[in-house]
Amino acid sequence: MTETNKTMKVAGVQMDVAFADVSANLARIEKFIQEASGQGAELIVFPECALTGYCYTSLEEALPQAEPIPGPSVRRLVDVCRQTNSHAVVGMLERVGSQLFNACVLVGPAGVVGGYRKVHLPGLGVDHFATPGDRPFQVWEANGVRLGMNICYDGAFPEGSRVMTLAGADLIVLPTNWPTAAESFARHAINTRAMENHVYYMSVDRVGEERGYRFIGMSKICDPTGETIVLAGSDEETILYAEIDPAWARRKRQVRIPGLHEIDRIADRRPEMYGPISQPSAFPAKAPADTPAD
Amino acid sequence: MTETNKTMKVAGVQMDVAFADVSANLARIEKFIQEASGQGAELIVFPECALTGYCYTSLEEALPQAEPIPGPSVRRLVDVCRQTNSHAVVGMLERVGSQLFNACVLVGPAGVVGGYRKVHLPGLGVDHFATPGDRPFQVWEANGVRLGMNICYDGAFPEGSRVMTLAGADLIVLPTNWPTAAESFARHAINTRAMENHVYYMSVDRVGEERGYRFIGMSKICDPTGETIVLAGSDEETILYAEIDPAWARRKRQVRIPGLHEIDRIADRRPEMYGPISQPSAFPAKAPADTPAD
Repeated sequence: MTETNKTMKVAGVQMDVAFADVSANLARIEKFIQEASGQGAELIVFPECALTGYCYTSLEEALPQAEPIPGPSVRRLVDVCRQTNSHAVVGMLERVGSQLFNACVLVGPAGVVGGYRKVHLPGLGVDHFATPGDRPFQVWEANGVRLGMNICYDGAFPEGSRVMTLAGADLIVLPTNWPTAAESFARHAINTRAMENHVYYMSVDRVGEERGYRFIGMSKICDPTGETIVLAGSDEETILYAEIDPAWARRKRQVRIPGLHEIDRIADRRPEMYGPISQPSAFPAKAPADTPAD
Repeated sequence: MTETNKTMKVAGVQMDVAFADVSANLARIEKFIQEASGQGAELIVFPECALTGYCYTSLEEALPQAEPIPGPSVRRLVDVCRQTNSHAVVGMLERVGSQLFNACVLVGPAGVVGGYRKVHLPGLGVDHFATPGDRPFQVWEANGVRLGMNICYDGAFPEGSRVMTLAGADLIVLPTNWPTAAESFARHAINTRAMENHVYYMSVDRVGEERGYRFIGMSKICDPTGETIVLAGSDEETILYAEIDPAWARRKRQVRIPGLHEIDRIADRRPEMYGPISQPSAFPAKAPADTPAD
């Protein structure tokens, strides 16, 4: 793993999104990139489906909002990244032939750096008919920081961030569209993912409503010990900022009291005991359903 | 998976522990079992090393406090479980020849049901010289509830509870001895383990001090959505109670709005993407060390 002494200021833009109005959303995203970059942020992260909205009811309705990567909107994002010398992660719908992916793209001054297609699809919104992500979890580099991407429901599964940590991630970002039922997830899982992997973890949610769904904000940036650095409210548009030190995320071994209390979040793993995690589940595919009160 | 309509009252005993005084600790544990069972609890869970204490400095010092399973102390625990018609999980040091395991035992009216040997060992206390757990993660049955056991630092690794969930756990218990540095773990990881696996999760910590280490209490029982049912303070001896409904833990599929919002914490997994988790890590075995402020 390369050493680095450079820190990086990152930003998470908690914003409302206009349903099925890519040009309006793109214009606002460009302004937010200019604002955050004016505050010194070098990496600016936006919510899931920030370009498009989320609550589509059919593939036919959603496909016209989807674009290839790169496509017209992504090229405009590259332009603003070039003008501001910044990187951005933006949630969007990716079109590949007649397939739709719930995706996000990492763009920088030199063009598209990487993309991610949501692997874990809940039965909700556009994910009812999106194609499940088909590429292995990967890590990309932005200004010396190794970046992993997950989207929303992915973060409820510990496996994605674990695989990206093993691939060298310093920072994992989670563009999300959390509905009200995700409050426990928002409160606890982000800190846990950061702690268990000893990485920075940033969840960037949207606010506002769409077709009866309210999104709960609560965007958050956590440090590698699992402590919250900064947390947004439930209904405000706001930009969260934090200074990321990738060298800290790479020091998995933590000496709390020399010789008496030392741990290592990665070297202390026992991968020889974890085999069932990557095997097909023995659970019945159609388990009985549950309808909780929420 | 067998169906069940029976619920079970469980108890977690947050207590202080006398260092290297098994008979004093055993006498108190017996009284706590009688008290909790008098309140209707059918399963009563105690902290890590509740029989022995934790902060040993050498194998020679610790071995005389260790016992086989079953051994004299475990037989007395079986007696009190028979008298009270209850099950108990008790943290102890297990001796096997000249080896020492940081272990817990599940006992019931009919004898020893199962045992667990801590798999993930932090560089702290007795874990400096304990032998790492050598048995696969397993699930045991107590009065119709399928029970998984982890100990303390194990809970910081998502893999253990994931494997036990895939093996059918309804409830995972975590006897623990959390030092002050584990506060973020205590606040967030217990809820996350419950939510991500859709199981009940109970952490049972000790309180008090031992050789300069203070233990932070904060024992907790969470429901399968990740909500806290009951939480203990940082320095009180107390018994937490909750009613467990194993049938709820087995309904992994959650219908929030029929046809519009349905998820399944297990069926929505993508195990074909998780292979690196069970492979030896590419990380350097001796990563550079970190010394945080805490």
